[in-house]
Order: sequence, then structure tokens, then C-alpha cells
Amino acid sequence: MKGKFITFEGGDGAGKSLQIEKVAQYLRSIGKEVIVTREPGGTEVGKEIRRLLVEGDKDKFDEIAEVLLFYADRRIHLEKKIKPAINEGKYVLSDRYNDSTIAYQFYGSNKFNDTKILDELYKIIAGDFKPDATVLLDVDVELGLKRSFKKAETTNTKELRFENVELAFHQRLKNGYLELAKKDPNRFVVVNANNSVEEVYEELIEKLKTKL
Amino acid sequence: MKGKFITFEGGDGAGKSLQIEKVAQYLRSIGKEVIVTREPGGTEVGKEIRRLLVEGDKDKFDEIAEVLLFYADRRIHLEKKIKPAINEGKYVLSDRYNDSTIAYQFYGSNKFNDTKILDELYKIIAGDFKPDATVLLDVDVELGLKRSFKKAETTNTKELRFENVELAFHQRLKNGYLELAKKDPNRFVVVNANNSVEEVYEELIEKLKTKL
Repeated sequence: MKGKFITFEGGDGAGKSLQIEKVAQYLRSIGKEVIVTREPGGTEVGKEIRRLLVEGDKDKFDEIAEVLLFYADRRIHLEKKIKPAINEGKYVLSDRYNDSTIAYQFYGSNKFNDTKILDELYKIIAGDFKPDATVLLDVDVELGLKRSFKKAETTNTKELRFENVELAFHQRLKNGYLELAKKDPNRFVVVNANNSVEEVYEELIEKLKTKL
Repeated sequence: MKGKFITFEGGDGAGKSLQIEKVAQYLRSIGKEVIVTREPGGTEVGKEIRRLLVEGDKDKFDEIAEVLLFYADRRIHLEKKIKPAINEGKYVLSDRYNDSTIAYQFYGSNKFNDTKILDELYKIIAGDFKPDATVLLDVDVELGLKRSFKKAETTNTKELRFENVELAFHQRLKNGYLELAKKDPNRFVVVNANNSVEEVYEELIEKLKTKL
């Protein structure tokens, strides 16, 4: 039997990593084999592409080169990791997938006038393939940023490029994600991520069960 | 006044590097500012992308991921190096450009059934922009391979991935290049590259002058 592909989306500080771990635990407790992965950087080559994307001078390439690298990473992730695992019956949980590119590059940053190029690239790398379910952790912008600054302080991360942007960006991002969820209600599960980890998880898992 | 963009194409051992140097010398001698570049890897980020493309396990990604990386490199090359130089009035000579991707990935390797995806990607990165002239150095397959093996022996290159393929591939590549030239005679200059460096250069420069 085939496995499932579940993606987790949301702005910074939405709590994706914690919730993914809890969902993985739950699925294992009911006997499923689970792999946890992420984008960009879900494979060995992908890690090198991720490094190009998140480190160094922001102006070293423009938005078109950036999305080509995102989709190269996504193609490798799909073909070398996600699809083989699903075919072996595993549940694949990914921290970000294609909705992130639409939300960040189109809605958030306004680098594109429409989603045409992004849709073309997705079709090139995936055809009609889609996640079985996508969990959107919807967090208030200021709360999310407060959480993510706290995390950055404690982990001393070099990957601040994604987060080092203004409030209006994060508001557009949040609204964009909600619009994506509205367009594809069969795939999306929208969860209020302002509450405690336990409360968020309870809402999430009840809603996710209805999709699987 | 705007500069010009001249690309050099051909299979392995066609003698592109030597001819590019000679054309650059000629253009400088008539007072032009010239930059010589190449694909993949014409920029700093591009060098990192080139490394992903030419080194390591061949199966680490498939043909779709491969062309996404080629076009990411090409976009960066265009926006950060080629177009700015042309706008400053310089002559840009590039060792390979888009015809290489069509010749190698479509005609040579047969990895694609048609050029649709490659054409879409080119449009995404370049719109209607094209080289002012493209020099195709057309060499007999066996002679070209003999030359390139000799070069590989003396340079101890790690980049054998592109060349370590069979004779039939190189024949398809040669025919593919000639087909590309036939489709766009205003842009292409086809030069017999079987002769000595001097003889090839003489034919090349006479033909190239008519395009500039």
C-alpha cells in the first residue's frame, strides 16, 4: 500500500518543527513508518542548493534564478526521497513544500506579478502530483515573529535571510497562505497556531485525521 | 553604444577555447573592450552550480533537476554579467550558451522527447533575448574526441562527466548542432573545425565579420 505525503506550511514562528515531531510520534504509535524532511535541503545535493539560497549576499542572484534553484531542489527531493518513500508505504512529513514558494515569492515579497512562472515550474517538476494533505499553521504575525526571534537568539543561526524582513511582508505572507488554503480546501487543514503547543496539536491532529 | 554577445558552440575537442582567445585578440586589436566567459559557471555563484553539475555521482539528480540548474546558472550569468557588460558597450564572448543545453540534453542524450520544457525555461530566464552571433565549430566526431582525450590527459580534469559518453551520442550532438544552425541562419556561423587552428580561425573571422 502506498504511503502519504503531508506538508506543513506557515510563517516564521508558527511552530512547524514541534508539530511535525508530534505528528510523526502519533503516526509511529499507530504503526506507520514515517520520514521527516524539509525544503529547501531535503537531500544531500539539496543541502548544497539550500546553502546557495540562504547564505551570502542577497543580490548575488534575482528572483528568477532563486525560484529555479528552489524548483531544482524540489525536483530532487520529489524524485530521490519523497516518491520512493511513498512507494514503500511510508508517511512523508515535509517542513515546507510548494505552497511556501507561492506564499513567500509571490504573496509575501511581491517579486512576481502573478503565479504563472511558478505554476509552470511546478508543472515541469511534478506534473499533477500533489500532497495528500497540507497543514497550515496560521499564527498572528507579531506573535510568530516574537517566537522566531527568540529561536534565532538561542540557535545563533546564519539563516536569517528568510526572516530579516518587515512586518508588512509577514502580513501579506499570512494572508497569502490563507488564500491558498481557501483555493484548495480538500488538501488544506488550517490550524490556529497562536495557542500552546498542546492545544495546537489537538486541533491539528483531529483535523488531519479527516484527510488521511 | 551597445556591445555584442557572441556565443561559441560545438562538441568536445572542437577547439572553442583557442578560437575564443583569437577572436578576443582580434576584437581588442580593433579597439573593442572584450570579456570572455563561459557556461556553466560564468559567475561566482555559477561556479558553485557548475560544481554541482559536473562533479560527483551522475544519479544524484535527474534530467529535469539538471536543466533547472543549468537555467539558474544561465539566468545569473545573463543578469549579473552578460547584460551589464553589453550595456557598457563591451563584447561578450561566451564558451557555450543556450544551444549547448538543447544540443546536449535534447539531441545528444535523448533525455527529452521534445524541446518544450527547455524552450519554456529559456523564455522564463531570457524572454526574447538572443546572442548577436553564434559560432558553431563543427568537428568530425572521432577527431574531436581524440583531441579532447588528449586534453583531459594533460589537464587531469575532474570534469569528465560531460565527455565520458559513447560515440553515437557525439554523432547525435553534432547533427543536432547543425540542425540548430539551419533553423537560425541569421544568428549562426558554421565553421569547419577539422583543420589547423589558423585555418579554422581564418574561416571563422571572415564569416563572423559579416554578422557584426
